[in-house]
Amino acid sequence: MNTPILLSKLKSLTLIIFTLVLSCSVQASHPNLVITQADVLDMRKAINEQGRFATAYKNLKAKVDLQMALPIEVPVPKDGGGGYTHERHKKNYQLMYDAGILFQLSQDKTYADYVRNMLLAYAQLYPTLELHPARKVKSQNSGKLFWQSLNEAVWLVHTIQAYDFVYGALSAQDIKRIETNLLKPVALFLSEGQPSTFNKVHNHGTWATAGVGMAGYVMNEPEWVEKALYDLEKSGKGGFLKQLDELFSPQGYYNEGPYYQRYALLPFVTFAKAIDNNDPQRKIFQYRDGIVLKAIDTTIQLSYSGLFFPINDAIKSKGIDTIELVHGVALAYSLTKEPGYLDIAKQQNQIILSGNGLKVAQALDQGLAAPYPFISVAFGDGSDGKQGALVIMRSQLAGDQAVLFKPAAQGLGHGHFDKLTWQFYDQTKEIVSDYGAARFLNVEAKFGGRYLPENESYAKQTVAHNTVVVDETSHFDGDVEVGNANAPVLSYFETSSRGTVSSAKIDTAYQGVELKRTMALVNLTELEKTIVLDVFDVVASGEHQLDLPLHYQGQLIDMNFALSVSTDQLSALGAKNGYQHLWLKGRGLPEQGLAKVSWLNENGRFYTHTSLVNGQEEFLFTQLGANDPHFNLRNEQAFVRRVNNKKQHQFISVLEPHGEYNPGKEYTLDAASQVTQLSYSQQGEVMLINITIAGVSYLIAINQVPDGSIKQNFQYQDQSFSINSRLAVFALNDDEE
Amino acid sequence: MNTPILLSKLKSLTLIIFTLVLSCSVQASHPNLVITQADVLDMRKAINEQGRFATAYKNLKAKVDLQMALPIEVPVPKDGGGGYTHERHKKNYQLMYDAGILFQLSQDKTYADYVRNMLLAYAQLYPTLELHPARKVKSQNSGKLFWQSLNEAVWLVHTIQAYDFVYGALSAQDIKRIETNLLKPVALFLSEGQPSTFNKVHNHGTWATAGVGMAGYVMNEPEWVEKALYDLEKSGKGGFLKQLDELFSPQGYYNEGPYYQRYALLPFVTFAKAIDNNDPQRKIFQYRDGIVLKAIDTTIQLSYSGLFFPINDAIKSKGIDTIELVHGVALAYSLTKEPGYLDIAKQQNQIILSGNGLKVAQALDQGLAAPYPFISVAFGDGSDGKQGALVIMRSQLAGDQAVLFKPAAQGLGHGHFDKLTWQFYDQTKEIVSDYGAARFLNVEAKFGGRYLPENESYAKQTVAHNTVVVDETSHFDGDVEVGNANAPVLSYFETSSRGTVSSAKIDTAYQGVELKRTMALVNLTELEKTIVLDVFDVVASGEHQLDLPLHYQGQLIDMNFALSVSTDQLSALGAKNGYQHLWLKGRGLPEQGLAKVSWLNENGRFYTHTSLVNGQEEFLFTQLGANDPHFNLRNEQAFVRRVNNKKQHQFISVLEPHGEYNPGKEYTLDAASQVTQLSYSQQGEVMLINITIAGVSYLIAINQVPDGSIKQNFQYQDQSFSINSRLAVFALNDDEE
Repeated sequence: MNTPILLSKLKSLTLIIFTLVLSCSVQASHPNLVITQADVLDMRKAINEQGRFATAYKNLKAKVDLQMALPIEVPVPKDGGGGYTHERHKKNYQLMYDAGILFQLSQDKTYADYVRNMLLAYAQLYPTLELHPARKVKSQNSGKLFWQSLNEAVWLVHTIQAYDFVYGALSAQDIKRIETNLLKPVALFLSEGQPSTFNKVHNHGTWATAGVGMAGYVMNEPEWVEKALYDLEKSGKGGFLKQLDELFSPQGYYNEGPYYQRYALLPFVTFAKAIDNNDPQRKIFQYRDGIVLKAIDTTIQLSYSGLFFPINDAIKSKGIDTIELVHGVALAYSLTKEPGYLDIAKQQNQIILSGNGLKVAQALDQGLAAPYPFISVAFGDGSDGKQGALVIMRSQLAGDQAVLFKPAAQGLGHGHFDKLTWQFYDQTKEIVSDYGAARFLNVEAKFGGRYLPENESYAKQTVAHNTVVVDETSHFDGDVEVGNANAPVLSYFETSSRGTVSSAKIDTAYQGVELKRTMALVNLTELEKTIVLDVFDVVASGEHQLDLPLHYQGQLIDMNFALSVSTDQLSALGAKNGYQHLWLKGRGLPEQGLAKVSWLNENGRFYTHTSLVNGQEEFLFTQLGANDPHFNLRNEQAFVRRVNNKKQHQFISVLEPHGEYNPGKEYTLDAASQVTQLSYSQQGEVMLINITIAGVSYLIAINQVPDGSIKQNFQYQDQSFSINSRLAVFALNDDEE
Repeated sequence: MNTPILLSKLKSLTLIIFTLVLSCSVQASHPNLVITQADVLDMRKAINEQGRFATAYKNLKAKVDLQMALPIEVPVPKDGGGGYTHERHKKNYQLMYDAGILFQLSQDKTYADYVRNMLLAYAQLYPTLELHPARKVKSQNSGKLFWQSLNEAVWLVHTIQAYDFVYGALSAQDIKRIETNLLKPVALFLSEGQPSTFNKVHNHGTWATAGVGMAGYVMNEPEWVEKALYDLEKSGKGGFLKQLDELFSPQGYYNEGPYYQRYALLPFVTFAKAIDNNDPQRKIFQYRDGIVLKAIDTTIQLSYSGLFFPINDAIKSKGIDTIELVHGVALAYSLTKEPGYLDIAKQQNQIILSGNGLKVAQALDQGLAAPYPFISVAFGDGSDGKQGALVIMRSQLAGDQAVLFKPAAQGLGHGHFDKLTWQFYDQTKEIVSDYGAARFLNVEAKFGGRYLPENESYAKQTVAHNTVVVDETSHFDGDVEVGNANAPVLSYFETSSRGTVSSAKIDTAYQGVELKRTMALVNLTELEKTIVLDVFDVVASGEHQLDLPLHYQGQLIDMNFALSVSTDQLSALGAKNGYQHLWLKGRGLPEQGLAKVSWLNENGRFYTHTSLVNGQEEFLFTQLGANDPHFNLRNEQAFVRRVNNKKQHQFISVLEPHGEYNPGKEYTLDAASQVTQLSYSQQGEVMLINITIAGVSYLIAINQVPDGSIKQNFQYQDQSFSINSRLAVFALNDDEE
């Protein structure tokens, strides 16, 4: 016997031992993936009682009954995303899933038969299929039913659950046919058939491991479960656990941002629950200090007024009612019984028919919801949590306000070149905004519904964001690889009743240029007002043009400096890197002192941005829409602060929400900015901003001392002050008696 | 005795007789204007019970208590509108009114004392006043407390009611001082002191007559009541009754449009109620077939989704919750007990502390509200109802939809040059829109909060509307006088389950040019769809350039013809009459056939405008904002259909709402227009539109026969049809078996 054969025998033996060891944990009963037999018993009871769960059941039943009245269609795959066969196969897996759960709940065999018939149709089709005709050439990720294997994995995640639901109603012959001709081949195709995807520590890999792992549980292939958890070689270098290790930061932040985080969430939530039901000894929900729950919770925190913060490639109407998070919240509530999750579930207004869904429905019926605690937080980025951070600052002092500050990592291919950018939200609206992705999802006339060319040429570019652009060139010169390799550094984050402050820097966005930004959302308690402080330091080895755009939502009301306006001709602001899309509407060079720009938003609140300028910052007013031959861009407004030939510059500004415009009720309050004075100084490591607003003079101190001893003493206007935190706010008494 | 003296004596005698005759009707008890003693007793009871009325009482009390804790300020008049003394005097009359009613309800003398003290302060100030320093030079309408006497009349309307409330708590000495030094002088100043305003049949006159008439009731000056009703000479050529005769059409439509109608409403509603309480024998609510009630009801009909149709100078956020209409609806409910008014009151969400307000509050508490019946209707314009009409078409077939079609009269100085324009509304949103007024009410930075220069240069101009512009010149060449003298002619209006149709024409907007427009909101019941048909005929004696703009709300999605787009330079479309404000973004000349333009609105619905073109209609795509040095204009979108050198042209189009864009839930339905065929023909007096939409072929017939015999027979595609109404819709059966 030569060595290779021995090795091979040994491997087989190991495999057999593994199988024996693990078979105890493989399910003997159905269903037992996300939904267990015990769940089913509870749910059957609930559908006969009054309440949200029964309503959800009736609604789903009515919807599925309509679909089941139509003939089953399992077309030969032909179309890419959005096309008929693509959409039909997507509908089919959802229908099988829904009919399957309806069978479990109603015990009406019609539903099981429908799933059976569709599965048999697939079992007949699948063995005849080659790779999908609309696949991308040379791609490792082609599917058979779909143009990409990602969709095929999603298909399997749903279909294996549907199969599990109806298993008990199937004949041995049907089971054999379905498993042999369809489900096992699909699972093998998605694992052995595409190792690079299956082993990849990436969201696509998660769908594949979830599908294959769940198939392993249902079809008694424990080896598949092992491979799903540890990769094809069971090395632990890939697989589901590695994905849990790497794709989220320790706090549960997903590198690509919330729009993709919620998408990535579903296979994690689904497979984790199946693992917990089948292999409770794996303690999957305790894994990495409860990373699954953290990932769900973080997704919620990454929203404002129901919508996700639209960083990176994000469609702005996506929010917490997304179906992936409905599943996530149901799981989170079931694991924790935290009443805040019920608040979110209420807003989602959708009950899923599962054991977790039932718990949510019953708790909501009992009125147990309590406000979800949105917090100010810095989410460390990257698997170690140290690749920069995404910072959220919130205040309830003057309405529901939030600052999103983004010293986060690049976020892979969907990331934008927007290091240290920020956004501001107030009274449910975007005030200082981010364009999000340039895309009309699934609208054929708009570039087939895919990301528009303007997503690359504008939305990803630095000038489309609220951060410094050097020499009209985007961060990392627009190179994703370089971006992925270089994250900003979060210097500090602190939150208290005075407000929230954070500072971060990056010296790799441009060669020889350090960008450092300090932002604070400050509560001026006496005035029941909040302001945003922004100090942006640029230090370079050579001279550069520095632009700091601010994209705002609303109607420009006023500025306190003269403007030269292009009234009968408009030209683009620049030629490339997004500048070619901005019409230059006017420009002005304010004198040394305070430069104010005010606008009015759709809620009828005024916002004034006050910059402390040295007489060298030019203000360029722009409107988006140049070089847009297909009217793909929204015509949004911005102003760009620009200095030229600078080795060093400090952009200092305050954003102040004020007043109310109520033409319906015919009153206008405080339409003018109340900031009358602003000055900046530095004492040792303490940054001092003196601001007079509505007649009150405040000294805002930000302690920049590196980690370690934090208490600082300083003098200001002959008074002594002491700060033993990052942020302090002192009301100065000008008129001492 | 010479004749003049005799005449004078006779006049005096007549006056005495009048006084004697009428004194019986003058009130002996207080209060007895809008609110009577009987009302007060009911209200006192209600504030001690649970319900909306008690809540409103408590809220007002809390608000007024806060104000009363501050010192009384009655400053020497100095500022114009928006300035401190102006706003203070406005606040004061509201405060006196509110404190007065609180005194009546609570019987707490603190409130009466507050009113008394403020009245005495005014009684001290008023005799010292000359005409207001900020008055317009040479104006007939200067005030003393305010820069214009209109505000002074509004002050009197409120203050005389406040005085009436606290009368019973005043000493004889206070009464004398207040009446002699303040109230009588103000009433005399507003009547004898400014005869041209007092006698004018105009909204300003109504405030003056209401104030003076109510002062007459309270201070036992029946002669003042007579003058208020019949003018200073009691000729009946002016005064309140003449205002009721002339300012509204027989259906209760106010010539200037709803924005001013609701403003005009308050003195009518207030004084009429006071007349009814003091002189019930005048049957004021039956006057002119119940014109007061009709005026209130019409104001409600002139709204969509809570907001008034923004024709003429209108601020678009003004809606049915305006305080004037809160009073109006309370009166309307009190007069009719129609539960539909409660529906409106519910949306207004504001209970007034009056007898009528109490009736509304109690009915709402009892859950008596029922949906207010919004209808399709043509409101005849002008005092005879024959100066054109304002047409509203509504449909509930596919969501709440409305067409506003405007063959109305000019509407005086606030009127726009927009004969035969239209607007379209769907799912609570504007789809085909009107700019409304260019104004930021009370925003000092925006031209002092007054109408902006762009209101004249753009918003009033024809090109700012959705109607034909000849040779880039506005209707009536922008001359208000000419406009007021020439109204369109409403040819017909009809509404039925098939839809609503109307046609109108005008040959005075341009010399030698007849404009005729036929519009229909058509229900395609089989498809559960609605479309808007638009046929605009222009016939001229010479050759002209004809432009037909369409201002739409949303993001341009697609057109089915090639466009030449200005990608890196923009220029204004024209030089004057509003054209100077439009950037020309692109132009295209579609071939003969169907020219389609699609857009997507904020609700996620698609709209496709399909024109039947002859190869000569150029499409110009524009964006508002050129020649706007102060960023005063909203940057809205339009496309203009243009033909050149034409003596005759017919613009034919269909607007089709379709599909749904839901990126949050990740689906897009029917993003493409479903209109595949459109043809137009005429058979005798019948206009025939054949349209194929979503695979169904419809023949839409519009019977244009002049009044008289209406039934028409015609042939179409070898089939016989008959129409015995204005509008008929036939589903054609192409595939007969």
